[in-house]
Amino acid sequence: LAHYKYYNNKDLLEPIEKYVSLIRKVFGPGPDQRHGYPGHPEIELALLRLYRATGNQDAYHLAKYFLEERGNPTGQEGMYYFDWEMIKLRGESPYKRPDHYPRSFSRWYGQSHQPILEQETCEGHSVRCMYLLVAAADMVALSHENSQKLDNAAQWQGAIVRLWDNMVDKKMYLTGGIGAMAQWEGFGIDYFLPAGTDEGGCYAETCASVGIMMLAERLLTIDLDSRYADIMELCLYNNVMTAMSLNGRAFTYVNQLASSEKDKSLRSDWFEVSCCPPNLIRVFGTLGGYLWHFGGSKGDAYVNVHLYTNATVTFDVDGKKVSLEQKSNWPWDGQVAFRLSGAQDVDLTIRLRIPAWAKNKYTLSPPSQAAVIKNGYLVLSQDYVAANPAFSLTVHGFEPRYLSPHPHTNQNTLTLARGPIVYCVEDADNAWETNHFKNIMIRKDSQVSEERCILESAGEPYVALQSVCWERLMDQWHSKTAGVEPGVDSFANATGTERKLTFIPYYLRANRGGKGHMRVGLQRA
Amino acid sequence: LAHYKYYNNKDLLEPIEKYVSLIRKVFGPGPDQRHGYPGHPEIELALLRLYRATGNQDAYHLAKYFLEERGNPTGQEGMYYFDWEMIKLRGESPYKRPDHYPRSFSRWYGQSHQPILEQETCEGHSVRCMYLLVAAADMVALSHENSQKLDNAAQWQGAIVRLWDNMVDKKMYLTGGIGAMAQWEGFGIDYFLPAGTDEGGCYAETCASVGIMMLAERLLTIDLDSRYADIMELCLYNNVMTAMSLNGRAFTYVNQLASSEKDKSLRSDWFEVSCCPPNLIRVFGTLGGYLWHFGGSKGDAYVNVHLYTNATVTFDVDGKKVSLEQKSNWPWDGQVAFRLSGAQDVDLTIRLRIPAWAKNKYTLSPPSQAAVIKNGYLVLSQDYVAANPAFSLTVHGFEPRYLSPHPHTNQNTLTLARGPIVYCVEDADNAWETNHFKNIMIRKDSQVSEERCILESAGEPYVALQSVCWERLMDQWHSKTAGVEPGVDSFANATGTERKLTFIPYYLRANRGGKGHMRVGLQRA
Repeated sequence: LAHYKYYNNKDLLEPIEKYVSLIRKVFGPGPDQRHGYPGHPEIELALLRLYRATGNQDAYHLAKYFLEERGNPTGQEGMYYFDWEMIKLRGESPYKRPDHYPRSFSRWYGQSHQPILEQETCEGHSVRCMYLLVAAADMVALSHENSQKLDNAAQWQGAIVRLWDNMVDKKMYLTGGIGAMAQWEGFGIDYFLPAGTDEGGCYAETCASVGIMMLAERLLTIDLDSRYADIMELCLYNNVMTAMSLNGRAFTYVNQLASSEKDKSLRSDWFEVSCCPPNLIRVFGTLGGYLWHFGGSKGDAYVNVHLYTNATVTFDVDGKKVSLEQKSNWPWDGQVAFRLSGAQDVDLTIRLRIPAWAKNKYTLSPPSQAAVIKNGYLVLSQDYVAANPAFSLTVHGFEPRYLSPHPHTNQNTLTLARGPIVYCVEDADNAWETNHFKNIMIRKDSQVSEERCILESAGEPYVALQSVCWERLMDQWHSKTAGVEPGVDSFANATGTERKLTFIPYYLRANRGGKGHMRVGLQRA
Repeated sequence: LAHYKYYNNKDLLEPIEKYVSLIRKVFGPGPDQRHGYPGHPEIELALLRLYRATGNQDAYHLAKYFLEERGNPTGQEGMYYFDWEMIKLRGESPYKRPDHYPRSFSRWYGQSHQPILEQETCEGHSVRCMYLLVAAADMVALSHENSQKLDNAAQWQGAIVRLWDNMVDKKMYLTGGIGAMAQWEGFGIDYFLPAGTDEGGCYAETCASVGIMMLAERLLTIDLDSRYADIMELCLYNNVMTAMSLNGRAFTYVNQLASSEKDKSLRSDWFEVSCCPPNLIRVFGTLGGYLWHFGGSKGDAYVNVHLYTNATVTFDVDGKKVSLEQKSNWPWDGQVAFRLSGAQDVDLTIRLRIPAWAKNKYTLSPPSQAAVIKNGYLVLSQDYVAANPAFSLTVHGFEPRYLSPHPHTNQNTLTLARGPIVYCVEDADNAWETNHFKNIMIRKDSQVSEERCILESAGEPYVALQSVCWERLMDQWHSKTAGVEPGVDSFANATGTERKLTFIPYYLRANRGGKGHMRVGLQRA
């Protein structure tokens, strides 16, 4: 991600720079300029990437203007820019508006309801919100790097982190999906996280979680903290990977946590607005950029390893080629073997992410008394690295564990996870199910066993989980005369016969036929 | 309700009849007529009342046309009437629409998405839906009475009952409120019944429950079944009565089941669209009409008693004045003393509602072997009535009971009720509460004690309930580092110290000051 060599092609670059210069002439703070910003934030991050690659000043200052001006309530003739455009420029009724605005003046749809620095919660279209914050994080990173110093970089970083925390703690599904509301493809109120359409929502757009990954990748460069990498990994293995079928031919936009008769667990061949399929391909094509950050010079070179897989990174430290290779069976097992080459005399520090679910438990081999975990990264000192060009890390905590969403979501459910993988149940394994597992209950104290499987059609290895479940008996409801009363005399949940229940990784759903019944969170018995 | 003597005033009637005649000229099936119907159903029930009072044929046929034509997908030039009005008549963009349409062409907002006879679920604006069904029920009643015979009366009755059942079983709050969605003041999807604003909705408009009472009153004339009267009573004592303060000076439109910081438990002095306050006054002014139905002639006269209170009805049976008086301390106690006069030689049958929560338990004094419950009404035969001009009924089941909403609402809650009264908790009695009772848990097996109280400012007697509660400890959530993961490792609900909890009738809420914290359904511990 740090290399943009193709930008050195002048024939390609010139028209882009002319275009940027034109846009900067039209939009800006001057009296004859439009005090506007884009409806769908995206150009900001592209402009900052252009600046980073070429040093184009127009690109930087235009992006900065868009970020700073956004949400100014009196920006254009004393009005919000988009209100001014609608009323003054297009002469439209303020009550004429697109389908994704629930009401007139839903400025929060595009995060332009107030200046970004003042926003306390993630609102509106979730992809736009992520792309906007990615650009804001880029601007902070450029300030940290002294490339373009901001007076208020700390304030910008504070706003981004505040919105990150709101998103993760109050507006994110256990699968890393965000956005409960289909109408505006975006965030609902805090803790409004229904599992599916028949509960009132669950959009969890693929592109939105791609946006989270992009944002996490930026945040890791300005504040190395495993919480960003943890969420990046959660999104990758769950809400993002579930969006493509194993044969690579079918996709999802929406990644619900429970199917219903109206919205079965299926993928589609194509979409009218086909943003998610190519976005997914782009992520897979640039995955290497999410694995690690590296750099520095002799004396303080570093590799910060965020994700574990099979990969090698080779980079230049003051003219010396350094390579770090990692080999693992991640995400199924926690052992990762590292091999370093070319790092003699480089003074390299290696930082290895210890995910939150590992609860600080790991084994380093050869061991090191000096190695400590700092902000979720195990720091291998220059001395350790120099002495051990081959070493291995075993991350613990791959036992299946039960997760629960926040109680204020009103989701009284248990979800199985193992390492970074979130599990679901499907009728493909549990053919007896007829109601989308809506009345299937599980218990936290049931034994869970693992089975190493291979999904034959794709040669895809995975770990299935087995446990037991019970049906919530609805007799008291089914025997009720229709139309008599809205509730019933309260009763204890009655559970039917014990049944075996097989769980598979959420990302593998809808690859093996079946009726399209699927659920991530099951009722607590 | 059966008397409309003021319609005999010709000076008043003539302009009304002229107006109806004009409307009937404009709207109808003819080639030069508009094939339309009102956006807010209401004139239909007024027209049928006019017909019932005066026999005006225009009124009947216009109402019938409006009911039958509504929702015709090809009614006007091959279009839905309102689509035609918008596009052809007003030349508006189909994407220009009012704030209460979530998307373009949300025809269900006004129940015109399909013909009424084909509708399977209650949709859209809940008051409109109720007023529409009231008119449909009036049309069926007129057919039953052979006043205006319908070929398909059974089909109409079937549609009304189907929608009633959908409403009560899947779209009604425990308080008799309907309509979860503020945006369109109406119904959400089945089982979408959040308790308050911070859970995603709860409109439960006062007028909508008034509409349910009106519909129940009609249905009791065409199909005497206690389920309609039970819901009528539930609405009256809870969602309707809660809408006015005890001093008669403050009102609510929205009757949420749980307060939040955004929407505290309060009433307002007035509203911009002030439909609810006068509607409430109208209900109180015509309350006598909901208590009982009576009529017939010598040999088969009847009084069907739906609601119990202190009241006397006097009516004419073939020139003879018959009076039935009831005296009770309802809704606090189940004993009702009846005294009949003038019924000698009339052959009167009296039917007394036994509410569903009484579970068929009652005491009749003097007793009768012959008295049986039919469709929820205890039938006192002509012989019994003739022999006992004074008798009393004691309805059992006034012990406090716990109610639960349907599990698919995701409301894992317990609500206390006693007789027809649904209870809530308020900070006025439980001043320790600071978070709208969101984390307060109760248990079904806790003892509940009663206290007879008087609300001093209004001299209003009521029964308070006392039990115990526990706080759901949120330590695992509060101690979580921000922004790390969307869920936590699942844990059993930890409960804090046991505390006393006082419950008061929901309709009495917000009469005694306090912070405006209130909740009807409390989490199950």
